Amino acid sequence: MKELRVGIIGYGFMGRTHSNAFRRVNNFFDLEYQPVLKAVCARDAGKAKRFAETWGYQSVETDWRKLIGRDDIDLIDIASPNNTHAEIAIAAAKAGKMILCEKPLALNGPEAEKMVAAVQKAKIPNMVWYNYRRVPAVTMAKQLIDEGRLGRIFHYRAKFLQDWTISADLPQGGTALWRLDAKVAGSGVTGDLLAHCIDTAMWLNGSIDTVTAMTETFIKERKHNLTGKMEKVTIDDASAFLARFSNGSLATFESTRYARGHKALYTLEINGEHASIAWDLHDLHRLQYFDHRDEGKLRGWRSIHVTDSDQPYMKNWWVPGLQIGYEHTFVHQVADFIQGLQDGQMASPTFKDGLATDYVTDAVLASAKSKQWVKVKKVK
Amino acid sequence: MKELRVGIIGYGFMGRTHSNAFRRVNNFFDLEYQPVLKAVCARDAGKAKRFAETWGYQSVETDWRKLIGRDDIDLIDIASPNNTHAEIAIAAAKAGKMILCEKPLALNGPEAEKMVAAVQKAKIPNMVWYNYRRVPAVTMAKQLIDEGRLGRIFHYRAKFLQDWTISADLPQGGTALWRLDAKVAGSGVTGDLLAHCIDTAMWLNGSIDTVTAMTETFIKERKHNLTGKMEKVTIDDASAFLARFSNGSLATFESTRYARGHKALYTLEINGEHASIAWDLHDLHRLQYFDHRDEGKLRGWRSIHVTDSDQPYMKNWWVPGLQIGYEHTFVHQVADFIQGLQDGQMASPTFKDGLATDYVTDAVLASAKSKQWVKVKKVK
Amino acid sequence: MKELRVGIIGYGFMGRTHSNAFRRVNNFFDLEYQPVLKAVCARDAGKAKRFAETWGYQSVETDWRKLIGRDDIDLIDIASPNNTHAEIAIAAAKAGKMILCEKPLALNGPEAEKMVAAVQKAKIPNMVWYNYRRVPAVTMAKQLIDEGRLGRIFHYRAKFLQDWTISADLPQGGTALWRLDAKVAGSGVTGDLLAHCIDTAMWLNGSIDTVTAMTETFIKERKHNLTGKMEKVTIDDASAFLARFSNGSLATFESTRYARGHKALYTLEINGEHASIAWDLHDLHRLQYFDHRDEGKLRGWRSIHVTDSDQPYMKNWWVPGLQIGYEHTFVHQVADFIQGLQDGQMASPTFKDGLATDYVTDAVLASAKSKQWVKVKKVK
Amino acid sequence: MKELRVGIIGYGFMGRTHSNAFRRVNNFFDLEYQPVLKAVCARDAGKAKRFAETWGYQSVETDWRKLIGRDDIDLIDIASPNNTHAEIAIAAAKAGKMILCEKPLALNGPEAEKMVAAVQKAKIPNMVWYNYRRVPAVTMAKQLIDEGRLGRIFHYRAKFLQDWTISADLPQGGTALWRLDAKVAGSGVTGDLLAHCIDTAMWLNGSIDTVTAMTETFIKERKHNLTGKMEKVTIDDASAFLARFSNGSLATFESTRYARGHKALYTLEINGEHASIAWDLHDLHRLQYFDHRDEGKLRGWRSIHVTDSDQPYMKNWWVPGLQIGYEHTFVHQVADFIQGLQDGQMASPTFKDGLATDYVTDAVLASAKSKQWVKVKKVK
Repeated sequence: MKELRVGIIGYGFMGRTHSNAFRRVNNFFDLEYQPVLKAVCARDAGKAKRFAETWGYQSVETDWRKLIGRDDIDLIDIASPNNTHAEIAIAAAKAGKMILCEKPLALNGPEAEKMVAAVQKAKIPNMVWYNYRRVPAVTMAKQLIDEGRLGRIFHYRAKFLQDWTISADLPQGGTALWRLDAKVAGSGVTGDLLAHCIDTAMWLNGSIDTVTAMTETFIKERKHNLTGKMEKVTIDDASAFLARFSNGSLATFESTRYARGHKALYTLEINGEHASIAWDLHDLHRLQYFDHRDEGKLRGWRSIHVTDSDQPYMKNWWVPGLQIGYEHTFVHQVADFIQGLQDGQMASPTFKDGLATDYVTDAVLASAKSKQWVKVKKVK
Repeated sequence: MKELRVGIIGYGFMGRTHSNAFRRVNNFFDLEYQPVLKAVCARDAGKAKRFAETWGYQSVETDWRKLIGRDDIDLIDIASPNNTHAEIAIAAAKAGKMILCEKPLALNGPEAEKMVAAVQKAKIPNMVWYNYRRVPAVTMAKQLIDEGRLGRIFHYRAKFLQDWTISADLPQGGTALWRLDAKVAGSGVTGDLLAHCIDTAMWLNGSIDTVTAMTETFIKERKHNLTGKMEKVTIDDASAFLARFSNGSLATFESTRYARGHKALYTLEINGEHASIAWDLHDLHRLQYFDHRDEGKLRGWRSIHVTDSDQPYMKNWWVPGLQIGYEHTFVHQVADFIQGLQDGQMASPTFKDGLATDYVTDAVLASAKSKQWVKVKKVK
Repeated sequence: MKELRVGIIGYGFMGRTHSNAFRRVNNFFDLEYQPVLKAVCARDAGKAKRFAETWGYQSVETDWRKLIGRDDIDLIDIASPNNTHAEIAIAAAKAGKMILCEKPLALNGPEAEKMVAAVQKAKIPNMVWYNYRRVPAVTMAKQLIDEGRLGRIFHYRAKFLQDWTISADLPQGGTALWRLDAKVAGSGVTGDLLAHCIDTAMWLNGSIDTVTAMTETFIKERKHNLTGKMEKVTIDDASAFLARFSNGSLATFESTRYARGHKALYTLEINGEHASIAWDLHDLHRLQYFDHRDEGKLRGWRSIHVTDSDQPYMKNWWVPGLQIGYEHTFVHQVADFIQGLQDGQMASPTFKDGLATDYVTDAVLASAKSKQWVKVKKVK
Repeated sequence: MKELRVGIIGYGFMGRTHSNAFRRVNNFFDLEYQPVLKAVCARDAGKAKRFAETWGYQSVETDWRKLIGRDDIDLIDIASPNNTHAEIAIAAAKAGKMILCEKPLALNGPEAEKMVAAVQKAKIPNMVWYNYRRVPAVTMAKQLIDEGRLGRIFHYRAKFLQDWTISADLPQGGTALWRLDAKVAGSGVTGDLLAHCIDTAMWLNGSIDTVTAMTETFIKERKHNLTGKMEKVTIDDASAFLARFSNGSLATFESTRYARGHKALYTLEINGEHASIAWDLHDLHRLQYFDHRDEGKLRGWRSIHVTDSDQPYMKNWWVPGLQIGYEHTFVHQVADFIQGLQDGQMASPTFKDGLATDYVTDAVLASAKSKQWVKVKKVK
């Protein structure tokens, strides 16, 4: 078993999901590499130490440049806030480290372009943690589309609905709530939630050509955790757009943190000439599938409980009918990344794929501002 | 258009469903006969008169014997309480009238046997209002089974759950609540609700051989509407039984009026070698269907929205996707009864079918009392 | 009982739904007026005669001007194609007849303005058949909003998805398929399906200020039933738009006839500060309701089976748990119209409400063409 | 951190679920003990070695008596077939080891009684792996019942439906399919599946007094993996029973491996005076809850997505809306077991609880044979 020595930056929510994936992948997937948790890096040494103890990291760093400089590390995993991704990734690429980067890739397309250039120049394996591609039901949707079962695609629709910021008393900024601060996060729901929808959409249905969008900030001012003062809210609370894909299909996308009753309701639906597919994150094992070629009177939406061994990833887990959860998507991503190393063929989504998504979110934000249809920049 | 002159006995809930069916059937079904509402009969002349005005009955009778004696009536529809069915039906048969009888056919099997003998002797068309056979999704289930799609049947399960008698303050007896009085109703949920489940079950899956049952009366005493006094409750509040069908399949049946959250939840499920079917009354247009012969990874329960023109009865109504409701099952039953007259082939369920169900409910009540498995009497 | 003498124009699908409503309303609703079916008018005398026989119309006309001229008719019901609404309605108004008009009110806003002017000048009762307002679950949504249960509204989303025009072999035009001919229908799904969504939306959530839209015609040419030749398809097959309501909420609307697996899936969802509501036409009795003020750990979407006597319209039908269907929405509309006559307060939606919807569909079509946000004209 | 040194017997499906639980518990739960994987024991040394490598066991044994004899082991985890539980557990108890035992506790009640006696005499912590108690939604059901929210309980119903043995070509016996061999498994679905339903039921609703049951073996002969010959099938393929609980409630229980379309569909429903609860394993995060005390017109079944931090176990995992899976129930069980060690209060279900379930399954099998109601033996 070869070692894949990991240095992670950040110990927040994403630090946990990644760490869990590194630790578990070899229990369930037969691979030639085993992730070894060499170091966690964060500015707060005490918190980093506790994180290292919980997850079994062998050492702690407080300066990410020092982490990147270490010889005993093969792979840098970036799990820190969005505004740190570019600088770290570019330095890590220069140091010849493999890189896994939390999504979105960067604060915007131009920043992401530099990251792509850096990993391409350094010729290093790289990946962005758009984990929802690896929900078994979503991966199976990809298979069905690639097998041509849907035929010509007419419609794509996706939503990502949450409700955790409705209270005007919720503050913004700082460690806990950096996602509400545009300087750190880049944008609000557009980069946080819609980015997921867009990544999956382009994977399943190809590139997006043009968009028209609207965004809204429902609560205009919130107390800022760092300044302690009421400050203007700079992020978008809600974001919706219409789009046209290169394949001629039409799409609607929407995300918000003001949809009562939805905790993390990522939904997608695709309507093709022959068949349709629907899925949602709250019941993530269910793939809804309708096939018009079924016998007439017996046509209906099939609720496929994607837990069988002939369905994506499931032979590695338990037995039919028994579910896995959210965290497993990260395990799958590490498994596929390692398999890619073994096969010499990089697993997606790469930084290039992450850039493509940043181009769409850039176009969405630009359209919301200009109130015009905006053409999406294409990755070269 | 030939006339089918109807005299109805009873103006309660079932009087309304039947009247509506008689009035509407020719708007939607192309038939040679048209029901003509000649008379409604009930003891309370004033209420009967108002009912006649609402539904367009041409006359009112207060003595059912007089109604039966009228020359201008072809068909007697019995919509009065259970303890009146036998006497009226036997007299109507003697008078040579066609008979539609509300379910259950009689208070018990021996009484029902006399009714069957009477209609057979008189050679008159007869039918029992087990209306749920004619929910389009249920009729389609029958088609699928008859086409052999399920293969050998292993399991049948049915429930009929309600929650309207949980309050101890609800009285029993009299006009309004005769269903809670065993003298009038024959039994509680066994004859009222399980009878529906049993009729459908034997239609779909053949005859029942043996049963073991339990019943319970949760509220032991209630005020009686007629005496005004607290009296012992004589009906079963809940009834459940295990059964073996003649085809070797196993079954569970249950009904109660003490299941919080269920208004009229009649559910059934059938598991066959190749396919399974499930249905419930609260979402009556949905037939759930699972077929193991579907391609492996795409197997799932299909939620079939039974509203297409190639699905039972639906070409007579609106367009795909648009629902019909509870009352339409009675319209279908009248349509099929008339079609049977035209074809000279009596539509089911006949009195004989109703007797078969009474034999099962008799066995259930006997088993609950004896605490033994009981063999079900077979209709000759 | 006073008579309300009806003359209907058109015997198609809508002719049937309206006729059924007129015939049934007095069986279930206690009203002072009874619709009397005086005449059906259509160009094809033979078909009109058969329709009259089926539904009990007393006479047949082949010239709508003659129908309007008759003294024995109080109310003109317009159930003919969209391009005939304006001329008929204006003439009927001049003749002092009450008018019920099938939706959409007219081919476009300017035409509808003239209709509104005509009925206002004539001071006659008028209504548009936007029937979905009167699905019990939708009416209950209106009640909940009016009671303030949702609080400030953040989001509205609605879709109307069908799949019946996907085949390129389907022709357009003529009697059967006039909905695919823009000259007769005005537009495609925008006027046919989105109009329903918009009418309900403005009823529930107030007026719409601005929209940005896209439309698409997936099949560019179809054989025309009248010419027998391949002709350019002039309608929109799909239409989607983003909107901002006057109350500050954001919305997405979409309709298409190219969504495999959906027969008539009208869905709507509203997210408010305190509570959310969702509904769809395929399971029309279910109102989904989420209330954040419920105790924390017990919060969940409630699936309310709207069939109880304390829920809209249901005390007039059967008992809890037993469903009604699509056609009943038209019965409710006639009942409310008559109640309005009795109360001297016109039931909605009036022609003015229908005009407001036409203004929105005009804006949607204009935006799709101009690729700009378009301000919606307000009804004065 | 104190060590809890584990020796596991068996490397099959349950060996994996337990091992995963031991390895993960400290990543997510803050505890004073850390399981240390000292040894895996199985007769096949090669397979045991591979299992040890995958899961990180430090050593391998092929004789369980030797494992029990080791000084460096605190806890014996029995994950071997049912017919080995008693002998191993009794020996482990004598050796003073803590014991976790896979369910069912023993082949039958008398055998289980000896196991209970042994652990009581040795005064050692003991637990049975009835993992479904620790699905967050099921644990929450327990909370709601204990808080009195349901009031008097009228009905309990549970099913466990599978479909994996329908093919007559499936062999029985040997390593792979010992569950189909009554000598090794004790019984068929009664001990394998119904045992789960019974354990949960008694935890939620108290003890069961009497039962009447039926069982069936649909496929009478199967090839035996060890003898290579067609042999009589000795297990029950299906098992159903009616029951009365000590609290006066009525119950139906059913399990089968012949229900097409169900992989591992464990469902339960409880109807109380005030509220009802329903749950199923295929969508394990959803607790269905109906409360009659909700405002009348707003009553509905709530679909509670049990993923919030104030819901059982969920604060230890991710964020609201994000699911965990089947395997997490075992992690919870280890966490609770350790918490019990810390608190000096043994976590349930103990061997005594396991014995109570064996008494019920004994009664079910006896009733199916005698065709009589059977009184369930009570644990002293």
